[in-house]
Amino acid sequence: MLSFECDYNVGAHQRILQKLLQTNMAAQPGYGEDEYTASAKQKIKKACGREGLDVHFLAGGTQTNKIVIDSMLHPVQGVIAATTGHVAAHEAGAIEASGHKVLTVPGHDGKVRADEVEALIKGFYADASYTHMVFPGMVYVSHPTEYGTLYTKDELTAIANVCRAYSIPLFLDGARLGYGLASRGTDITLGDLCDLCDVFYIGGTKVGALCGEAVVFTKGNTPAHFFTFIKQNGALLAKGRLIGVQFDELFTDDLYFEISKNAIEMAAELRRICAEKGYKTYIDSPTTQQFFLLDNAKCEELAKHVRFSMWEKPDSEHTVIRLATSWATTKEDLAALAKVL
Amino acid sequence: MLSFECDYNVGAHQRILQKLLQTNMAAQPGYGEDEYTASAKQKIKKACGREGLDVHFLAGGTQTNKIVIDSMLHPVQGVIAATTGHVAAHEAGAIEASGHKVLTVPGHDGKVRADEVEALIKGFYADASYTHMVFPGMVYVSHPTEYGTLYTKDELTAIANVCRAYSIPLFLDGARLGYGLASRGTDITLGDLCDLCDVFYIGGTKVGALCGEAVVFTKGNTPAHFFTFIKQNGALLAKGRLIGVQFDELFTDDLYFEISKNAIEMAAELRRICAEKGYKTYIDSPTTQQFFLLDNAKCEELAKHVRFSMWEKPDSEHTVIRLATSWATTKEDLAALAKVL
Amino acid sequence: MLSFECDYNVGAHQRILQKLLQTNMAAQPGYGEDEYTASAKQKIKKACGREGLDVHFLAGGTQTNKIVIDSMLHPVQGVIAATTGHVAAHEAGAIEASGHKVLTVPGHDGKVRADEVEALIKGFYADASYTHMVFPGMVYVSHPTEYGTLYTKDELTAIANVCRAYSIPLFLDGARLGYGLASRGTDITLGDLCDLCDVFYIGGTKVGALCGEAVVFTKGNTPAHFFTFIKQNGALLAKGRLIGVQFDELFTDDLYFEISKNAIEMAAELRRICAEKGYKTYIDSPTTQQFFLLDNAKCEELAKHVRFSMWEKPDSEHTVIRLATSWATTKEDLAALAKVL
Amino acid sequence: MLSFECDYNVGAHQRILQKLLQTNMAAQPGYGEDEYTASAKQKIKKACGREGLDVHFLAGGTQTNKIVIDSMLHPVQGVIAATTGHVAAHEAGAIEASGHKVLTVPGHDGKVRADEVEALIKGFYADASYTHMVFPGMVYVSHPTEYGTLYTKDELTAIANVCRAYSIPLFLDGARLGYGLASRGTDITLGDLCDLCDVFYIGGTKVGALCGEAVVFTKGNTPAHFFTFIKQNGALLAKGRLIGVQFDELFTDDLYFEISKNAIEMAAELRRICAEKGYKTYIDSPTTQQFFLLDNAKCEELAKHVRFSMWEKPDSEHTVIRLATSWATTKEDLAALAKVL
Repeated sequence: MLSFECDYNVGAHQRILQKLLQTNMAAQPGYGEDEYTASAKQKIKKACGREGLDVHFLAGGTQTNKIVIDSMLHPVQGVIAATTGHVAAHEAGAIEASGHKVLTVPGHDGKVRADEVEALIKGFYADASYTHMVFPGMVYVSHPTEYGTLYTKDELTAIANVCRAYSIPLFLDGARLGYGLASRGTDITLGDLCDLCDVFYIGGTKVGALCGEAVVFTKGNTPAHFFTFIKQNGALLAKGRLIGVQFDELFTDDLYFEISKNAIEMAAELRRICAEKGYKTYIDSPTTQQFFLLDNAKCEELAKHVRFSMWEKPDSEHTVIRLATSWATTKEDLAALAKVL
Repeated sequence: MLSFECDYNVGAHQRILQKLLQTNMAAQPGYGEDEYTASAKQKIKKACGREGLDVHFLAGGTQTNKIVIDSMLHPVQGVIAATTGHVAAHEAGAIEASGHKVLTVPGHDGKVRADEVEALIKGFYADASYTHMVFPGMVYVSHPTEYGTLYTKDELTAIANVCRAYSIPLFLDGARLGYGLASRGTDITLGDLCDLCDVFYIGGTKVGALCGEAVVFTKGNTPAHFFTFIKQNGALLAKGRLIGVQFDELFTDDLYFEISKNAIEMAAELRRICAEKGYKTYIDSPTTQQFFLLDNAKCEELAKHVRFSMWEKPDSEHTVIRLATSWATTKEDLAALAKVL
Repeated sequence: MLSFECDYNVGAHQRILQKLLQTNMAAQPGYGEDEYTASAKQKIKKACGREGLDVHFLAGGTQTNKIVIDSMLHPVQGVIAATTGHVAAHEAGAIEASGHKVLTVPGHDGKVRADEVEALIKGFYADASYTHMVFPGMVYVSHPTEYGTLYTKDELTAIANVCRAYSIPLFLDGARLGYGLASRGTDITLGDLCDLCDVFYIGGTKVGALCGEAVVFTKGNTPAHFFTFIKQNGALLAKGRLIGVQFDELFTDDLYFEISKNAIEMAAELRRICAEKGYKTYIDSPTTQQFFLLDNAKCEELAKHVRFSMWEKPDSEHTVIRLATSWATTKEDLAALAKVL
Repeated sequence: MLSFECDYNVGAHQRILQKLLQTNMAAQPGYGEDEYTASAKQKIKKACGREGLDVHFLAGGTQTNKIVIDSMLHPVQGVIAATTGHVAAHEAGAIEASGHKVLTVPGHDGKVRADEVEALIKGFYADASYTHMVFPGMVYVSHPTEYGTLYTKDELTAIANVCRAYSIPLFLDGARLGYGLASRGTDITLGDLCDLCDVFYIGGTKVGALCGEAVVFTKGNTPAHFFTFIKQNGALLAKGRLIGVQFDELFTDDLYFEISKNAIEMAAELRRICAEKGYKTYIDSPTTQQFFLLDNAKCEELAKHVRFSMWEKPDSEHTVIRLATSWATTKEDLAALAKVL
């Protein structure tokens, strides 16, 4: 059975496992006070090329979204996100469980638009009874989005400007950030993210690591007591080195960028093969998640040979499926896929 | 200045104040263990005409919504409501602050439709990744709605049937229930609410009392430790008699229904006057909240003489305003209003 | 049956009810924007005699403790209180339900000692792993305490100095503050509380009102979005005038102080009578709550004639009971009590 | 520098890393639906030797305590624990952050006593106002405790009997369970834990794994929606295989028990060496955490050569330190330690 259902279906990049082996028996302090974590933070800051950054490591995406959002919002504030945003739709209410409403704007192939964000905020303050309502307290975007799409620098700048105008932070979910940076579908760089966002994270789980996300606070704005807040949320690993070692290796010799590039190239090849086979693209995604519209019979047939994600049912006759490449996808995988499409 | 902006702009019905005076110095246990509270519960049960009811008193609407919903939902469950529902829009995130997402369906002049509720639930269970999402755990309706509209018995039965089919409770917010029961705009009775809803409340604050809502659990389904849960939420009054006395009087000699009838008659008269003056009805409401579409100039002019609520801005030239009658509205009030319209 | 079990067993002072009657039909804005609330705030500020105060009204003690504490603490901070403090023992976990640990120090007849508070804080920061623990974020004291005892100005100053030294606020629960101010058992004045505390409240429920507590922020330190936070906690009354009117009257012509004085005088008389009858004082309380040690037989006998509170069981043969006077206690009540003691 | 400060100072057992390497590129479903996780669950059930068990994997101790406790308690319930229990003292208020009070009983070298637990519960129900207080809803014990001590089967049975008598669950924190099972200091087996506890966990992080704890619900009592609750708490790993693979290997050929035995033997040797060197034992611990009372000068001197944990300051002249062995401790480590003691 071929496996194209997601980008977390195998373990870690070989170099990461080797680094775990190599450092395994070195005695180090716990809770992220180890030297690998310190080194990883330095390398990430250097890759960002900006001053005044603060880096923290967490284990996964939902955990990161929940902790970052809750730590930065006042209890009466909510977070603005696309209706299709991960925090709005697929985190089992993690944000609400921490007390905050997700205030939704339309998702345009997964992206929010600066004008619609501004309209929501303006509408809020124009309402005579706004003190009885949830305050817009942050804007959340994902990049790549849940639909594989990317913001341009202009688009993200426009959103950042709205945030600045209303003094609320911009938070970018980079669970698949490597693939966004490696794609030709946008001109946004790591440095741009530091300039435009108040906080963002560099995803590890879906880009070569076993687990781990690197949160970057960009403006000297790390929330007070952030370490203890992580602990209180049950998210502090005793062996913090597990994530530190992985990011230390990912940011050695551009490994993170190299393996992201491979994923993007494989995605391009996947698109080419699918087009050749007459598959209809559903959303034009420049990254690793590719969406196709199939009639149900074809979908069922394909499912006998390939694992993929059922995405939505636009009507009773058709199904949208997602095929995903990753750092681990090989030409051989795609050749095998081509045979069964 | 005339005051038609809401139904909580004056104190309590005279008979309630007299009853407070008359019972004032009688020593009674605290925390709702007093005899007035016991009597009020009995009278409410009798008015409902059903067996197996359990009645609790709380101080206000948002408090009641928050406590009832949180006490009945599992942490991973959310409550389905209209986008215009009070819990979705105007409670400052009280529901989310207790950990639950509000899952919205369209509001049709404030009402939810059974088919759209069912579609949401079906869509949830049809999603392959529903265990990563917020479970639909309750349906919330308000009656009258925030737009003054009412469900018919058929409509509410259809919603109740969806709830039964998916084993989730139906909760009816009756902050203005008296006005709904007194209106000819629906055939729903108190007894019907006991049959169709799993829990509902009979609003006091907006129907003659200084404060107080009577929550009715209809199926022997009062949540475990409900008294202590109220205390934990900071909602237990030491002098529980304050609410007990008021409801005891409201349910003596049909006071609650009589004063609600007055409000409905005054609303009919208000509609008549406004029609005569050429005001354009915005929503056809059979209860005490009446909505009119004014051009902005007229709106500004009117604001010099009458307090009303700004409801929405359908376009830059017009404003929708709300004029509300209540148990306390008199013919003299309306005559005065007629002069300035 | 005589009723000495608590100070919330009857309604409100006659003048308060009269004021409610008199203002009843005046149309006023909701949510505390009415003129009575505004007037009450002014009178309270004047009684305090300090500049820069901010006053808010809430309905009851637990609600006030929960909202004040949660609004002022960071999520990783807890509140220091006596083991016998109301927030530690008798609020059904309201503080923990809002996410905060109650860090306990010994209660000395209900009072905390500055040195023990300081030792707790010092011990916290001396612990190598304090970032894994709950930060001491506030000191909570009640005055009078749950045992009727009072702080002297020196004692409270010492506690305030510890708070200042560690930059954490001092919060004084004044659910029975009137009785503390009227007692000769302390030299603390309302002005002192403004100087020493960061926030405190003036209890209404137990001092003549039907409900209501007046929270005073003393240092321009009202938490951001406090109004909306109250709403989110389900604690905002639509008819805010209910509490405004009551405090407006309580602070007219020193009513609050006069009725508190009566309660203290009645308590002195109660002590005299009990001593005469050979009752053994359990705690030396200078306010309205009086504690006596009875053997069980006597306790049972007394319970046939008087309602009182069972306080504790120091051993299997004895019971500590509480008899409470209030603003409403009369000489006739005490004469009747004397007959059955 | 020698490292004896804790049992999470190095990586994972070599066999675990090898298994991670070996399984690394096998495509598997995410979120714990992989075959390694399934296999690990089976092996753990087999090692327990009981029917009807349900096993779930989480990443770390505080996360596990928080999620298990919150998922099993009603909002008005708290958890009973020793004052020294991890949940009471060293989890940054994680339990309170999820809304629950920790109700403390004295710790006797870290252990709770059945009679004191029962006295707390009895005292609660004997209090006339218990509905205003936090209900005792669970008993938490750690085994080994935070002081390395162990319950005997009789002691744990007595606690379990109290729990049964009051219908509340018994939860055993086994963050270091392997060391408890390998020690001769108790007769408790894995099977006994299944019989006596309602839920317990088998610690991986401190017993050979990089991360991971295996939660065992023993009575068909897994909380409803537990998977989604884990997700909502941000504790669901996309690559669930990371923990599955580790426990699969730990429970292959008794690896978990073998490496625990080594840790216990090394601890015995550590005790022997320390006794020889004249170190005074502070607590008599039969497991891997050893506590010694040093005068401050000796403590400072030792700190130049060895990393250890500062535990407490019994007086101004002395310090209690903790030296810990683990699965990774070697004879060579101890020989080196012997030279600097």
